[in-house]
Amino acid sequence: MTGIAQRRPAVLIGLIGEGVTPSLTPPMHELEGARHGMSYVYRTVDLSRGQGTEEHVRSLFDAARRLGFTGLNITHPIKQTAIGLLDELSENARRVGAVNTVVFEGDRTVGHNTDITGFAEAFADELDDVARDAVVLVGAGGAGSAVATALRGLGVGELIIVDQDAERADALARTVAARTSGGAIRAASLDDLPALLARVDGVVNATPLGMAAHPGTAFDVSLLHERLFVVDIVYRPVETALLAAARARGCRVMSGLGMAMHQAADAFEIFTQEPADRRAMLADLENLVAAEAAGALAPVATLRGEKQ
Amino acid sequence: MTGIAQRRPAVLIGLIGEGVTPSLTPPMHELEGARHGMSYVYRTVDLSRGQGTEEHVRSLFDAARRLGFTGLNITHPIKQTAIGLLDELSENARRVGAVNTVVFEGDRTVGHNTDITGFAEAFADELDDVARDAVVLVGAGGAGSAVATALRGLGVGELIIVDQDAERADALARTVAARTSGGAIRAASLDDLPALLARVDGVVNATPLGMAAHPGTAFDVSLLHERLFVVDIVYRPVETALLAAARARGCRVMSGLGMAMHQAADAFEIFTQEPADRRAMLADLENLVAAEAAGALAPVATLRGEKQ
Repeated sequence: MTGIAQRRPAVLIGLIGEGVTPSLTPPMHELEGARHGMSYVYRTVDLSRGQGTEEHVRSLFDAARRLGFTGLNITHPIKQTAIGLLDELSENARRVGAVNTVVFEGDRTVGHNTDITGFAEAFADELDDVARDAVVLVGAGGAGSAVATALRGLGVGELIIVDQDAERADALARTVAARTSGGAIRAASLDDLPALLARVDGVVNATPLGMAAHPGTAFDVSLLHERLFVVDIVYRPVETALLAAARARGCRVMSGLGMAMHQAADAFEIFTQEPADRRAMLADLENLVAAEAAGALAPVATLRGEKQ
Repeated sequence: MTGIAQRRPAVLIGLIGEGVTPSLTPPMHELEGARHGMSYVYRTVDLSRGQGTEEHVRSLFDAARRLGFTGLNITHPIKQTAIGLLDELSENARRVGAVNTVVFEGDRTVGHNTDITGFAEAFADELDDVARDAVVLVGAGGAGSAVATALRGLGVGELIIVDQDAERADALARTVAARTSGGAIRAASLDDLPALLARVDGVVNATPLGMAAHPGTAFDVSLLHERLFVVDIVYRPVETALLAAARARGCRVMSGLGMAMHQAADAFEIFTQEPADRRAMLADLENLVAAEAAGALAPVATLRGEKQ
């Protein structure tokens, strides 16, 4: 009877964004919730093109609150859109101008950003000792924005942002410079990469290139050399063409697994206010990625129907 | 890795109706889900007065489907309203013209009624051997409707329905007669109760009288005598004034616990397609009711905020 009276509150989370159905974040959360003895359900809500409007997202937030969701993760294309719908932002989220974690606290809706903390924690785990006087970041989209913010906080002396879209790179450099403090930050052209990579300490890929759906690399891997550390935030597959080439050249490398795990662990802690078992979550993620690569992962479906 | 690949689908259920926040059905489902090793979350969605319209219920059904709910339980005042929103009805639900369980099956929304089966199963458990040539049902509301349908299926020779609202009793008798087959069925007046109870085999209370919020009994307990079986579908408290009086007179009695458990177990099986452990669910419900009565039940709240 005591057990029943002291039952843990159940946790209900959703992930809203385009293409989220195959995300591995739901099983990561549910497995961690189970380790904590919680009833923990994490659902995906896939947006179609055109559903990323503030009006539509507002209706989803209202419905999620009404139907008892504890919180939400949100991703492309609504990480910025959502800001206007929130009552309060964490310092991180305000800095980067993007939110990936939303919590319903009573009547208030509070936004956080665990992409930034997730990258920073993974970097601290795996590359804490590397020199970082100068680092090149390739990719100035949503992920690049979080990574740039994190890298500045990690004490990078000079951060150079490169993107196919030069204006986007320039805008991100200016935004991050204005919103965070730290070393120098500027944009450069893809054409500058040969000269840049010859002199910097590391390079980070924050483009989707290297994912199963976007094969290839964001730049010519013949520019890599053993004095560079190489980070890829892609984690499906874990070993991208970029990381394989870097490893072959003897570079220190960091895959996207650590960031993916830490962003989920940080969100778990925000949702539940309990400490996540990050070692176990990383092992789960490795197993999930391996099972998916082997085609062994059950298709994402609920017990009834496929439309959920 | 096999374990991860073969993870059970998570189950997400909601209960929509007026005054559902303190319901014990959510913990019954979550505890049973945990026994099955499932991530199982069951939320309540409390309706305010005026929110029982078809339009509002439609928006809640749409939102629940969109946000990944496996299914819903629904209760007063939308058990009939919901029928117009469903693509398909189980035979039971069609018979009684009311739904308490909704499942999202792909694009289709299917309604069931486990109040009827729940009552019938509890009766079979506890009173299978009693004579039932004539039975009086007191209360012709939503619960009375399910109980009348169940009693007819249980082979009651003559079912007499009594309600403070004579027209409602009459309407229910005619509806059940038209929709189900079985023995005689008719309405009678509250004034007829002394004569009726003197000759029938049993009486069932399907009014809310006897609940903590509605103290008292639906009729004068001095009419009870030891040859009657007495059923109360109220289960909070388990021992209502009616059951206490019946027990004191040596009547066979049946509390509302069995029906409450079986309706939940039947819904669990519809939602999950796995067999419920009814013995364990009954023990859970007994513990929950006892903990609530002792003031030991944690207030219903999620980890964050009280508005959920």
